[in-house]
Amino acid sequence: MSKLRVESYTLSIDGFGAGPEQSLENPLGIGGTRLHAWAFPTRTFQSKLFGKADGETGIDEDFAARGFDNVGAWIMGRNMFGPVRGPWPDESWKGWWGDNPVYHMPVFVLTHHPRAPLVMEGGTTFHFVTDGIHAALERAREAAGGRDVRIGGGADTIRQYLQERLIDELHIAISPIVLGSGERLFEGINLVELGYSCTRHAATEWATHLVLTRQ
Amino acid sequence: MSKLRVESYTLSIDGFGAGPEQSLENPLGIGGTRLHAWAFPTRTFQSKLFGKADGETGIDEDFAARGFDNVGAWIMGRNMFGPVRGPWPDESWKGWWGDNPVYHMPVFVLTHHPRAPLVMEGGTTFHFVTDGIHAALERAREAAGGRDVRIGGGADTIRQYLQERLIDELHIAISPIVLGSGERLFEGINLVELGYSCTRHAATEWATHLVLTRQ
Repeated sequence: MSKLRVESYTLSIDGFGAGPEQSLENPLGIGGTRLHAWAFPTRTFQSKLFGKADGETGIDEDFAARGFDNVGAWIMGRNMFGPVRGPWPDESWKGWWGDNPVYHMPVFVLTHHPRAPLVMEGGTTFHFVTDGIHAALERAREAAGGRDVRIGGGADTIRQYLQERLIDELHIAISPIVLGSGERLFEGINLVELGYSCTRHAATEWATHLVLTRQ
Repeated sequence: MSKLRVESYTLSIDGFGAGPEQSLENPLGIGGTRLHAWAFPTRTFQSKLFGKADGETGIDEDFAARGFDNVGAWIMGRNMFGPVRGPWPDESWKGWWGDNPVYHMPVFVLTHHPRAPLVMEGGTTFHFVTDGIHAALERAREAAGGRDVRIGGGADTIRQYLQERLIDELHIAISPIVLGSGERLFEGINLVELGYSCTRHAATEWATHLVLTRQ
């Protein structure tokens, strides 16, 4: 059965998944990049993001790697795709990830503003979905062909799928930093009522990894 | 210099320091006792709470022990002292901790309702402070005679002292459980603006320990 999964979503001690004032210069908000200090050195991130053959192994790498395992399509919110708000002024914004994005598979972007599919190098196509989270999930599942669907973020997108009990599993990492403000992933979310519990945890010097599973 | 410290304050993954529906039966709210699974087996808690000579050692114990090191007085909110709300109906409620409470030193209880000091066995005296958090801190510092003052909780009391930048150090533990609802320790608190950063962290199978220090 194809699962809907959140992977490598990292929170600060004070519960934020990105810093304040997200912008073109600071896609993850001020201080937000430090959240992912656990992930960057891993073999998976070194390979996927920077095309390098080397990288650290161990628990952090195990969690980074599982995020890409058996994934056949992605879903993300408009804000994760880019800093452009409102109707698309033109076709120039093509995501944060260059001509050959890290996904290499279909990516479904939730937006209120229609736009033609954007075919990138390396197998990534961004599809813009204007008819809601259920429609996006249906299309992503179909595109995934039996594999899992991964939700990239941001917090608001994850919360919408959580509230509908559509997420099967969330891997959350907690980094030992404070961000002060931003968007709280679990704001208004009652994980117990929604049926989630922590089914796995492991810690490293860089992060505490937790897997929440829906019963 | 005498410090104001929070110690062994434990949060769930979703950021709650106690479960919902705190009551006489569930002083820490529903599910709240599980938060402290890291602490109960430690030598410090076994000795302080249950009078036993044995207990686990290691990182969890190190953090439990530091919570009692060089502490000369406590401050706590009314709700941590007990479930009674409003004016004291009589003198019968004497805290959760029996005739010989775990503190063995002066404890300053923040309340809007005056009450005579309550002298318990073993050196604990509960003083009821009705003129606010600054007055309570002043009296606690004086009583501590140069040692540190520890804030027991709850979340609201800690937040009030945080907002006034009066807390020097917080030891927070994060337990790998979800509570779903309750009181969020860091609700409305901008730790970065208030000058706090994480200066130490260590994880065990049972909890991730973090020390936040004010610059």
